[in-house]
Amino acid sequence: MTPSYLDFYRGRRTMITGGLGFIGSNLARRLVDVGADVLVVDALIPDSGGNTFNIAGIEDRIRVEIADVRDEAAIDSLVRDREIIFNLAGQVSHIDSMRDPYTDLDINCRAQLTMLEACRKHSPGVYVVFAGTRQVYGRPDRLPVDEEHLVRPADINGVNKAAGEYYHLLYNNVFGVRACSLRLTNVFGPRQLIRHNRQGFIGWFIRLAIEGREIQVFGDGSQMRDFVFVDDAADAFLRAGASDRCVGQVFNVGGDEPISHRDLVAMLVDTAGRGSVRFVDWPEDKKRIDIGSFYSDSTKFRTAVGWTPQVNLREGLCKTIAFYRDHMHRYVDDVTGGANP
Amino acid sequence: MTPSYLDFYRGRRTMITGGLGFIGSNLARRLVDVGADVLVVDALIPDSGGNTFNIAGIEDRIRVEIADVRDEAAIDSLVRDREIIFNLAGQVSHIDSMRDPYTDLDINCRAQLTMLEACRKHSPGVYVVFAGTRQVYGRPDRLPVDEEHLVRPADINGVNKAAGEYYHLLYNNVFGVRACSLRLTNVFGPRQLIRHNRQGFIGWFIRLAIEGREIQVFGDGSQMRDFVFVDDAADAFLRAGASDRCVGQVFNVGGDEPISHRDLVAMLVDTAGRGSVRFVDWPEDKKRIDIGSFYSDSTKFRTAVGWTPQVNLREGLCKTIAFYRDHMHRYVDDVTGGANP
Repeated sequence: MTPSYLDFYRGRRTMITGGLGFIGSNLARRLVDVGADVLVVDALIPDSGGNTFNIAGIEDRIRVEIADVRDEAAIDSLVRDREIIFNLAGQVSHIDSMRDPYTDLDINCRAQLTMLEACRKHSPGVYVVFAGTRQVYGRPDRLPVDEEHLVRPADINGVNKAAGEYYHLLYNNVFGVRACSLRLTNVFGPRQLIRHNRQGFIGWFIRLAIEGREIQVFGDGSQMRDFVFVDDAADAFLRAGASDRCVGQVFNVGGDEPISHRDLVAMLVDTAGRGSVRFVDWPEDKKRIDIGSFYSDSTKFRTAVGWTPQVNLREGLCKTIAFYRDHMHRYVDDVTGGANP
Repeated sequence: MTPSYLDFYRGRRTMITGGLGFIGSNLARRLVDVGADVLVVDALIPDSGGNTFNIAGIEDRIRVEIADVRDEAAIDSLVRDREIIFNLAGQVSHIDSMRDPYTDLDINCRAQLTMLEACRKHSPGVYVVFAGTRQVYGRPDRLPVDEEHLVRPADINGVNKAAGEYYHLLYNNVFGVRACSLRLTNVFGPRQLIRHNRQGFIGWFIRLAIEGREIQVFGDGSQMRDFVFVDDAADAFLRAGASDRCVGQVFNVGGDEPISHRDLVAMLVDTAGRGSVRFVDWPEDKKRIDIGSFYSDSTKFRTAVGWTPQVNLREGLCKTIAFYRDHMHRYVDDVTGGANP
C-alpha cells in the first residue's frame, strides 16, 4: 500500500526549481513514480549542478522549463497553477560565494524574493518547501545542533541562504504563502555535480576514489559531519510537502551516523576498492570559512513527519559509486551544453 | 577630565554613513566635540531621514559627501583613509520594506557588501561599527530579549538588516575587517524624521503631540517597548568604536525603562501639554508585521564598555519636544532639496 504522504502527490501539480540539479532531479524521479504532475525549472548555469542527463528516462513524463529564478517574468508565469513548489534552485558553493558575493546574493536572496512575490501575486494557495542548509548555523556552540541553535553563518553563502529562508517564513507568516524550510546537512548520492571540487567535498572525494586518485583531507581529519543519502533527502521533501504540520516551520534534516572525515574517507576507499588518502595542511581560503565539527539533531522533523533515513552511509556510498562507474562521462564532461549531452 | 573613550577620537579619521540622518548627525556632533576628523556620507534619499539642517552649526567642521552606499566607486574612494566607520546608512521603514522589498534589499544587504568589500580592498585596517536593530529578533519568545535569542525577523527590513549584520561579522572573522553590531531598540530625540509616519511611531507621536493633534494607538496600547535617547545611542557608538572588546561582537543597546504604548503616550501628552490619545483597531498591513511586546537586555554591552543610558524617558521627551518646537519647519517641509533647506 502506498503511504498516504506519497498518495498525496497523485495528480498534484508540483514544481521543482533547480530540478535538473542533484537533489531536484532525484526528487523529480520520485514525484514521477508517485504520479505527480512535475514541472522542472532550471537555468542550467554552468558549473552549478544542473545536468540534463539527470532526468534521463523521465524526460517524457515531466515538463522542463529552462528559466532562471532571477527572471521575474518567467517565474511569474511558471508558478501560476502550481500547488507545491520545491524550491531548490540556489548557488551552493561556499567558496564561490566568497569570491563573488554578489552573484550568490542575487540567486540566494534576491531571486527568493522574486519567487515569493510571484507566489503572493499569482499563486497564493501554493505551498513552498525551501531547501535550507545547515550552513546557516556556522561554527556550532554545541553538538548535535538543533533548531534552537543561533544562526551565525560563517560564509557569504550561509548569510544569503539564511536570508532566503527568513523570506520564506515571512511570506508564510505575513502574506499567507505557506512555506517551510529543510536545513539539509551534507547530501550525497547519484546525480551530484562531481566535475569540480567547489560544491562540497563528498561528491569530489567519491570521484577521486573511483578514479583511483589521492584524496586530500585537510588537517588531521578529525572533524565530524553527518550525511544524508539523496533518496532520503528526496523523501524528506516529499513528506514536508504533504504535511500541514510543517507549514511555517524550520527543520534540520541530517543523518544519524556522524563520522569523522578520516573515517569517512577510509570507508570510501574501502568501498570503492580504489583511491588513497593524504592529510594535508588547510588551504587558507578554506580554513577561513571552516566550521569545525558539525552534525545535526533532526528530532523535530522525525517527530513531525515520521521521517527516518533508510540508507546508511556505507550502502549509500556503494550505490553512488556504482552509479558513477556507469555514467562517469555524463558528469565530468561538459554537461550543460544542450538537451542531449 | 575627558573619558578615555572620548579622548580616543581626537584627530581620529572617522566616517559616518547616513551621517545626515537622525542618529548619524547626532553622532557627528559628538565626534566634532571631541576633536575627530569627521567625514559624513549621505545620499539624501527623499523621505529617508537625511536632512541638511541636522548638521547646522557644524557644517564647517566636518566634510560632507553626498554619495549613495550602493555606489561602489564612490564608496571605494571614500573609505580609503578612514580609521573608524560608523555604518548607519540604511532603509529603516518596516512598512516600506514590505511594499518595496527590492530597494530594502539593495540598501540593507547589497550595499553592505559593497561597503565591506571596499574596506577589505582599500582600507583593511578600518573598524566598522554597524547600526543593527532589535528588529532582527522578530516576535520575542521571552522578555527581556538578550543576544542569545534566535534571530527570526518579522518583516523584510528585519531580514535584510540581519543579513547586513551577518556580513559584517563574516568580514570580521574571515577577512579581518574588524566590525561589530549594535542592535538598537527604539531611538528617539532631536533630528529624527517626523515628516511622515513610516519610520517608527515615536517621532510621529511627538509631532502629533506638539501640533495638538490626536495620537492613534493601535489595539489597547498594552504592548511594551524600550527607548533610547539619541545622545545615549550616539554614546553607545562612541564607546563601541573605541573598544577592542567589541570587535566581532553583537550587542543589544536598549533602554532600561520598558513602558507600554498607553503609558508612553500619556507621558508624552502630559509632557507636551498638548495632544490627545485614541485607541483604534490595528490596520491590516501593520498588524501583519507587529511583534507584540519587546524590550531588550543590554547587559552584555553595559558590561563590555560601561555604557549606561544617561537620559530618562521623560527628560528625553522634554528635550525632544523643545527641539522640534524651535525647528518644526525644518522637519516638516521638504528637507532634502538642497544645501540650505
